[in-house]
Amino acid sequence: MCSVSSAELTDVDQLATPALLVDDGALATNIARMTETRPGASLRPHVKAFKSTALARRLVEAGHELFCCATIAEMEGMAAAGLGHDLLLANEVLDARRLGALVDVARITVAVDSDITLEAAVNGGVKEVLIDVNVGLPRCGCEVADAGRLADAARTKGLNVRGVMGYEGHLMDWTDRDKQRAGVAASMDLLLEAHRLVGGDIISAGGTGTFDINEAASEIQAGSYLLMDTHYAKVGLPFRRAMSVLCRVISVNSTGNYVVVDGGLKALGMDHGNPTVDGATVFFCSDEHTTLVPDEGSTWAAGDLVRLWPAHVDPTVAKHERMHVVDGDRVIGMYNIDLRHW
Amino acid sequence: MCSVSSAELTDVDQLATPALLVDDGALATNIARMTETRPGASLRPHVKAFKSTALARRLVEAGHELFCCATIAEMEGMAAAGLGHDLLLANEVLDARRLGALVDVARITVAVDSDITLEAAVNGGVKEVLIDVNVGLPRCGCEVADAGRLADAARTKGLNVRGVMGYEGHLMDWTDRDKQRAGVAASMDLLLEAHRLVGGDIISAGGTGTFDINEAASEIQAGSYLLMDTHYAKVGLPFRRAMSVLCRVISVNSTGNYVVVDGGLKALGMDHGNPTVDGATVFFCSDEHTTLVPDEGSTWAAGDLVRLWPAHVDPTVAKHERMHVVDGDRVIGMYNIDLRHW
Repeated sequence: MCSVSSAELTDVDQLATPALLVDDGALATNIARMTETRPGASLRPHVKAFKSTALARRLVEAGHELFCCATIAEMEGMAAAGLGHDLLLANEVLDARRLGALVDVARITVAVDSDITLEAAVNGGVKEVLIDVNVGLPRCGCEVADAGRLADAARTKGLNVRGVMGYEGHLMDWTDRDKQRAGVAASMDLLLEAHRLVGGDIISAGGTGTFDINEAASEIQAGSYLLMDTHYAKVGLPFRRAMSVLCRVISVNSTGNYVVVDGGLKALGMDHGNPTVDGATVFFCSDEHTTLVPDEGSTWAAGDLVRLWPAHVDPTVAKHERMHVVDGDRVIGMYNIDLRHW
Repeated sequence: MCSVSSAELTDVDQLATPALLVDDGALATNIARMTETRPGASLRPHVKAFKSTALARRLVEAGHELFCCATIAEMEGMAAAGLGHDLLLANEVLDARRLGALVDVARITVAVDSDITLEAAVNGGVKEVLIDVNVGLPRCGCEVADAGRLADAARTKGLNVRGVMGYEGHLMDWTDRDKQRAGVAASMDLLLEAHRLVGGDIISAGGTGTFDINEAASEIQAGSYLLMDTHYAKVGLPFRRAMSVLCRVISVNSTGNYVVVDGGLKALGMDHGNPTVDGATVFFCSDEHTTLVPDEGSTWAAGDLVRLWPAHVDPTVAKHERMHVVDGDRVIGMYNIDLRHW
């Protein structure tokens, strides 16, 4: 972490708002709880959820050296930061040349689910692939029946086929864990069947919502557990909310009993809805404002600091240049969000 | 516009995706149509909708020299680019020092709606203010009855009170224009009453949705009309959609009859819902994917280019570093989105 000298900011009330905060204690708890269940190489943390090489380094310190990414820019940034021990682009690309340019400085693997994405890997100079298999989420991934043929085609072209990948993303936020467990088992039966056809050491699957119940995966692709959000919090996972958007009250309307803070939908991932606030209800978000209705009996004043808890942390992170690491109200460090864009 | 030499990209199929596109012809149409109704200083274009000094320069060429901003960073960037003829921060701030630092190079006005924001303007070194009045949107703005007192207090402290501001944002997307007209008139009655108490030359109000029916405003604060989005398009305004997110099909699932493109909710403003696509229906957006169901009878292949039309353009722009200016499929320029963050 970049340390903050005494001459710099030491308290959140000195920060310009809106500002992205990460609670150091909650982050440490989340890292530790995940590592208990998924130590070392049994976890492949998903960089898309935090987009920061500084935070990735903290995961290396906790024993995780494998990472997966959603964008080529994330792969490039991780490799440039010396974090390229084993990087998986868990996504299909049609132009793999930027990935191929990394193979001398990092171990690069890319997901393929078709002849055209396989061809792209070869043409781009990538040497290793996973066969991405459709396990029920209507997104990328070949059918199980096609997985063996694709693996054979890849090997014929000189690629190292490391195994299979299949993301049961449609099951991540189920609150009935017995039903979720059955759903995951059914999805993983498909992936295991594909793995028998494909071979290789890797069965990469899962996420924050299934990290503890996916028994088939050799490695879990989880990222949101680090910072958490109100969407995942509803599922009842053992992780603490660590990320908030710090705002200030800039306007108080006593007639209407609402207050306005200086952070809005441009500072928050909105695809899962409004953020939440302790001690108030979110009325609505505008570009650079959020209107809040304070709880009965509470009094809010201009200048008050407010933490908005985002509904979805991944796109929230992507909107900011940095996250301030805090211990309560004390600012103890800063992580650059250096893996943004594409 | 930064011109593109023949050695550089000349066709959209050469762009890395996802890429933000702005159609030059549609943009020109939108500028011209607005300028017919609101020429010169009768429009104060809202920088928050495009966050680009290059695009602001195009508005200067069309005769608009006044601008309003939603963030201090936008004000700083406009001033630094020599576009500080008359900049309004149409928002409240509690720390105006960064604004005060601009008064030697730009004309800086800030909205105030309380004693504390007025005090902040004075302490920050800002010399001119507008009194922000609540005209019905539950957000910032003082009550009409308080506007005169605030103006007097501002003048006592040596500030130039240039007039009033009141945003009828709750009326922007009404599709019944007669009802909308009546609503705007009622809101503007409040603002005009405040203006009688406050004085000054400026009555700043309105937006893209009311640019042609707000008869009280001396200047309209519109921005979204330039690039448009599917939300505003539903209202039936005379502006063309100019902005899209260019993606590529990366996966085709013939069993499920869906395709997946390589841009998702991290490339799109999602607060007003999913984007739309010509020739297909959006199934759902993930961080870096959108799953589409093609229209009956159409065949899509990996590599096909697809334009996603965002539901809300302002936060979409804020997620990208640049917009590529296109004429059909030809890339003819590039605008840096240089006014992002806070």
